[in-house]
Amino acid sequence: MEKILLAGEWRDADHTGSFRAINPDTGATLDREYPVSSRSEVESALAAGYEASRALKSAPREQIALFLEAFAQRIEERSDELCKVASAETALPVSPRLADVELPRTTNQLRQAADAVRNRTWTEPTIDTASNIRSMYTALEGPVVVFGPNNFPFAFNGISGGDFAAAVGAGNSVIAKAHPSHPHTSQLLAEAAFEAVQEAGLPAATVQMLYRTSHADGEALVSHQLTGATGYTGSRSAALKLKEAADLAGKPIYLEMSAINPIFMLPGALAERGEALAQELIGSVLLGTGQFCTSPGLVVVAAGDEAEAFIETARKQVASASTGALLSAGGVDGLGRAVETLQAAGAEVLAGGGVADAPGCRFQNTLLRTTASALLAAPEKLQTEAFGNSTMIVVAADADEMVAVAGVIEGSLTGAIYSHTGDEDEALYRRIEAPLRQRVGRLLNDKMPTGVAVVPSMNHGGPYPATGHPGFTSVGIPASLKRFAMLSCYDAVREHRLPEELRDEISISGCWRLIDGTWSQS
Amino acid sequence: MEKILLAGEWRDADHTGSFRAINPDTGATLDREYPVSSRSEVESALAAGYEASRALKSAPREQIALFLEAFAQRIEERSDELCKVASAETALPVSPRLADVELPRTTNQLRQAADAVRNRTWTEPTIDTASNIRSMYTALEGPVVVFGPNNFPFAFNGISGGDFAAAVGAGNSVIAKAHPSHPHTSQLLAEAAFEAVQEAGLPAATVQMLYRTSHADGEALVSHQLTGATGYTGSRSAALKLKEAADLAGKPIYLEMSAINPIFMLPGALAERGEALAQELIGSVLLGTGQFCTSPGLVVVAAGDEAEAFIETARKQVASASTGALLSAGGVDGLGRAVETLQAAGAEVLAGGGVADAPGCRFQNTLLRTTASALLAAPEKLQTEAFGNSTMIVVAADADEMVAVAGVIEGSLTGAIYSHTGDEDEALYRRIEAPLRQRVGRLLNDKMPTGVAVVPSMNHGGPYPATGHPGFTSVGIPASLKRFAMLSCYDAVREHRLPEELRDEISISGCWRLIDGTWSQS
Repeated sequence: MEKILLAGEWRDADHTGSFRAINPDTGATLDREYPVSSRSEVESALAAGYEASRALKSAPREQIALFLEAFAQRIEERSDELCKVASAETALPVSPRLADVELPRTTNQLRQAADAVRNRTWTEPTIDTASNIRSMYTALEGPVVVFGPNNFPFAFNGISGGDFAAAVGAGNSVIAKAHPSHPHTSQLLAEAAFEAVQEAGLPAATVQMLYRTSHADGEALVSHQLTGATGYTGSRSAALKLKEAADLAGKPIYLEMSAINPIFMLPGALAERGEALAQELIGSVLLGTGQFCTSPGLVVVAAGDEAEAFIETARKQVASASTGALLSAGGVDGLGRAVETLQAAGAEVLAGGGVADAPGCRFQNTLLRTTASALLAAPEKLQTEAFGNSTMIVVAADADEMVAVAGVIEGSLTGAIYSHTGDEDEALYRRIEAPLRQRVGRLLNDKMPTGVAVVPSMNHGGPYPATGHPGFTSVGIPASLKRFAMLSCYDAVREHRLPEELRDEISISGCWRLIDGTWSQS
Repeated sequence: MEKILLAGEWRDADHTGSFRAINPDTGATLDREYPVSSRSEVESALAAGYEASRALKSAPREQIALFLEAFAQRIEERSDELCKVASAETALPVSPRLADVELPRTTNQLRQAADAVRNRTWTEPTIDTASNIRSMYTALEGPVVVFGPNNFPFAFNGISGGDFAAAVGAGNSVIAKAHPSHPHTSQLLAEAAFEAVQEAGLPAATVQMLYRTSHADGEALVSHQLTGATGYTGSRSAALKLKEAADLAGKPIYLEMSAINPIFMLPGALAERGEALAQELIGSVLLGTGQFCTSPGLVVVAAGDEAEAFIETARKQVASASTGALLSAGGVDGLGRAVETLQAAGAEVLAGGGVADAPGCRFQNTLLRTTASALLAAPEKLQTEAFGNSTMIVVAADADEMVAVAGVIEGSLTGAIYSHTGDEDEALYRRIEAPLRQRVGRLLNDKMPTGVAVVPSMNHGGPYPATGHPGFTSVGIPASLKRFAMLSCYDAVREHRLPEELRDEISISGCWRLIDGTWSQS
């Protein structure tokens, strides 16, 4: 039985059970046995995390930045092993993906967080000199709990991903809840993180990790009095249970839980470049076997010859592409159930639609088709998220029906509109954009949503039920740090007692502050 | 029966009942009869508000700014009538309070919101030129519901207060839920608001107002599919029911619901200026008959002769002050129950403690005393909010017990530390500040918390249960506007389709934008 990282040491788990991961490419069960932690371990982690959070408040910011950089460096040094292990646990290819895309993204995020720690701009120091009232964002009182999803074993892992970087960058300790589909990957990352904690001289319980808990203990984790806040990426059903528990306790919880990511292909674009768009679409749909939060699940076109040609090109490409493995057997089941739900609501299967006759966790590449009138009649059922290598084309009778579909889109991470390169689609664009804009966090033009750049202007968020709050992003530094912070105001507090960010004179390099309505850099 | 402002007109209510306000100074029931709205009116308001929100998105920003200014001007023009009516409904004096403090604060907030609408800085336009990804805050899809409290008939009124100004400033329509203790005041304000809407040419349902609903219909209002978000100021019990309903529906709700506002009087300060501090404290406690969200409810001192002298001065001042009227009979009952709860948990009544033998809604000015050890043994009961002209002094055995009390303070809007003007209290200050800082939104030095300046650096917020989220403030422009907004990202969107705030060249005067990591003003 592997050990857990708790209260500043790797220790034997007080476990209530155990589990092993599988290799989704082959279906083979992997060797290592991991513990399911008990409630008492949840309590221990929270108590240790609370003390670490308290100690972190007086630790030099430079130590936190050094930790993030040392961790990034260790990840790079162990790239080969990490990628090999992660590939075995997820079936994601080492290249092109784990080694050359996801791992660099992960270390880049950690280093961006280190920069944010150093320049402190994320704290938004705001000063009103006339009233001598000053405010800034500061770390939470208790630890941040981070639940990582199955689809990004590095970049969204609870112990190394975007939420982790944001929570630590904001000065919090973290209790990572690893995803049980890739425990060995998480273990390796936690080892690197813990070594970096020691190297940087941070409190030993700054990072902790549990592999798995019961659902009830997960709910206890997010709603406990000692908990600061929670970041969660994963399925909607689990998310909503955690949300209810956290909400009832008044604990902030940030959820990234589902998205259909609609794409509107306007008539001018289809006429102009329909075949290329079909290829671009299916390439995006099948990327990573479709297991991206931003994978396009719904494509709206207007009926006509161009639409039929577009659909036929897409169908051929879906049917001829090789079948990638999904992340888990649960993923195969879930995709199957979603396709059944869509069919039961009136969607027709044009390609695939069933479990693949192949080893491991594989579902046939799937293309569905339905009509806008069917979608308008059953908007909830026909927006069931089919997470994986599947998408659905919705054929609208005309432009008005396309607009009507935009009006029933559920809150989503992204929405894209492809239009004529000239101005042929401009009027329809405006009619669709107005309702769509309100339902998605990120609106794209002529571009697939599957890339999520780590830039300050990114919004990887969106209205409910894509997330739990439309004002926050989980990707993009420094904005993502503010989720794990409180607003702290100082009213007539004596100068020497203020945090450095709020003093009249500061020596923090690059810190933007808003002083009497003017942004300036020290 | 008075009419309600619904769907762009003053109309007869489809009422399920009616009510009249009282004059809390005399206890007399006032003449006007106001409707309790039905569920169908809640639905009508939401439908009309949704359409107004949609129309507002394409209205020129200047129209919204003009509305806010025209509304402020009308309030000033009707100052005499408003103050007279509000004073009759609340027993708050016309001067010094309604005419010379609260009304100017209200119009100032509206005008600050107009400035925020014009310069657009609140939207935080953020541009990454290399990736061509741009983001900003934008209005919500549906209307914002604002529940006003009883204690600020102008400045926090659902139809004219800080949440109203913030919601409209962010580009939303508003459905105000007036507080039923001052319906006539709210009616006059709504008349002025509606005239200003018409003058500015905004959609007629931009502002709507209901006087009262059933609890179930209030829950429907905050959780309805068409609702954008809710701002609420009032009692914790009602707030938590609304929060649960809104949370389950995934609708943002911002609550300002309770606060004990602890004050720590350090030994050096007591020795130096104990008598003056006792007077300052009781002045703050009795201001507005103690009916401020930030009224100091708990005062911690260390045992000794100075503490006894401090307490005796406070007791004399409490006992000798005239007894102001509370806002309602419910307020008298609530304060009585709170004092009973505190007594049952071990607090001793030093002055007052019962209903006043006087006309109207009056409770005796009340001073309680308890020990830190009692508070540490029953921290929840002994932090019961006694809203009104009452406060409690907690005597700690020593400095360590003061620190321990700071460690059990519930989330609060404010916390103050009074210390020696030199450095005698410095070590104890640091020990108390560390835990207290995490529990309060605004930390003060040597200053009572009852003033809440409307400046950009204000935080009128704090950790749960003071509010529902530690990262937001309900006072302070532009920060308060961001509560009623979503983050909207534009990825590769064609230049001419972008909102003006995100275009390469803009002509908005004074708009701060973050372009490639640098804040600049166009």
